Amino acid sequence: MSTPRPVKLNETEIATALSKLPDWRLQGGKLHREYKFADFVAAFGFMTGAALVAQALDHHPEWFNVWNTVRVDLATHDAGGVTALDLKLAHSMEELAGRQPRAEK
Amino acid sequence: MSTPRPVKLNETEIATALSKLPDWRLQGGKLHREYKFADFVAAFGFMTGAALVAQALDHHPEWFNVWNTVRVDLATHDAGGVTALDLKLAHSMEELAGRQPRAEK
Amino acid sequence: MSTPRPVKLNETEIATALSKLPDWRLQGGKLHREYKFADFVAAFGFMTGAALVAQALDHHPEWFNVWNTVRVDLATHDAGGVTALDLKLAHSMEELAGRQPRAEK
Amino acid sequence: MSTPRPVKLNETEIATALSKLPDWRLQGGKLHREYKFADFVAAFGFMTGAALVAQALDHHPEWFNVWNTVRVDLATHDAGGVTALDLKLAHSMEELAGRQPRAEK
Repeated sequence: MSTPRPVKLNETEIATALSKLPDWRLQGGKLHREYKFADFVAAFGFMTGAALVAQALDHHPEWFNVWNTVRVDLATHDAGGVTALDLKLAHSMEELAGRQPRAEK
Repeated sequence: MSTPRPVKLNETEIATALSKLPDWRLQGGKLHREYKFADFVAAFGFMTGAALVAQALDHHPEWFNVWNTVRVDLATHDAGGVTALDLKLAHSMEELAGRQPRAEK
Repeated sequence: MSTPRPVKLNETEIATALSKLPDWRLQGGKLHREYKFADFVAAFGFMTGAALVAQALDHHPEWFNVWNTVRVDLATHDAGGVTALDLKLAHSMEELAGRQPRAEK
Repeated sequence: MSTPRPVKLNETEIATALSKLPDWRLQGGKLHREYKFADFVAAFGFMTGAALVAQALDHHPEWFNVWNTVRVDLATHDAGGVTALDLKLAHSMEELAGRQPRAEK
């Protein structure tokens, strides 16, 4: 792809970006979020959608799943930190997660 | 599986069942429904969820997909018609489809 | 995407392309192929992989699935025929299908 | 489901079972395996197939994915350890992983 390589964001830029991603935080230099869905079908439905988005971006998450839980860490290895690609994927994940039923509190 | 083999429903039973599945109809001896989702990610997210349900039921749909459209036909080959398994899958599909964004009219 | 719009291939170009896709044929102006996998898990595993590829290409198949069978038709709506995008997707599908177990003859 | 609840295997039973799963080991009381596939499409194709199997078993993995890597931990929460269900899922994963291209050494 001819997409320009993303550049590492600085702390101010990340803080600004996180203000629009209220359920995400910076953890270990990566954007981190835990989702709790209603069940495995919802969790894996989310993951399939997110996989499609990630593949189209050629930018993939680190993620952990057990039944209804998906924990995500996003960073851009080549840039050594968080980039605009991670923000894009995080926003897509928020949108995709919103399609799936969540665990009741 | 030790599940009893489903028996073919008669016309009255199908008509009663369809009264609870307003967007489905009997077509060619099968339960038929067309879904129009917002986009391919939604359509395939639906299909992945439905695939998980179908695999757990050991009862699979006939379905056609192009981009945001999924057309489904449900029948039980071994029973020579529509059975309770098809109704179960149809209801699950309705629930799963409800999780995904639809095409705007 | 900045990808140039694909142009419709002529009959000679399609014939040449099909010589490298021996299980595909031109049917109704589309590239057509039927796959018979070992089972639904294989068929849907193929479809998931193909869906990832298609989404990355922003070019999606018309396809039909019932249990172990997947029938595919590829054409480029905007170009009014078969284009290089369809060939690319067909070759990816061949590669992905090769990963999955097939039905025994 | 009417499936009898699986019982926790003892150390001897686990050792015997692991002799047939040479790439798995016991780690933290769970069956552990790391897969390295050729790419994300292969890894997620594996995961989709494994998800279908897991859903049909009503027994789900703990798993982590980043690009071509999938790390799996299997245990049966209700039984407080490793059970026959975990062995069944591990063997299915081996079979499904065998369908996908692996990373070159």
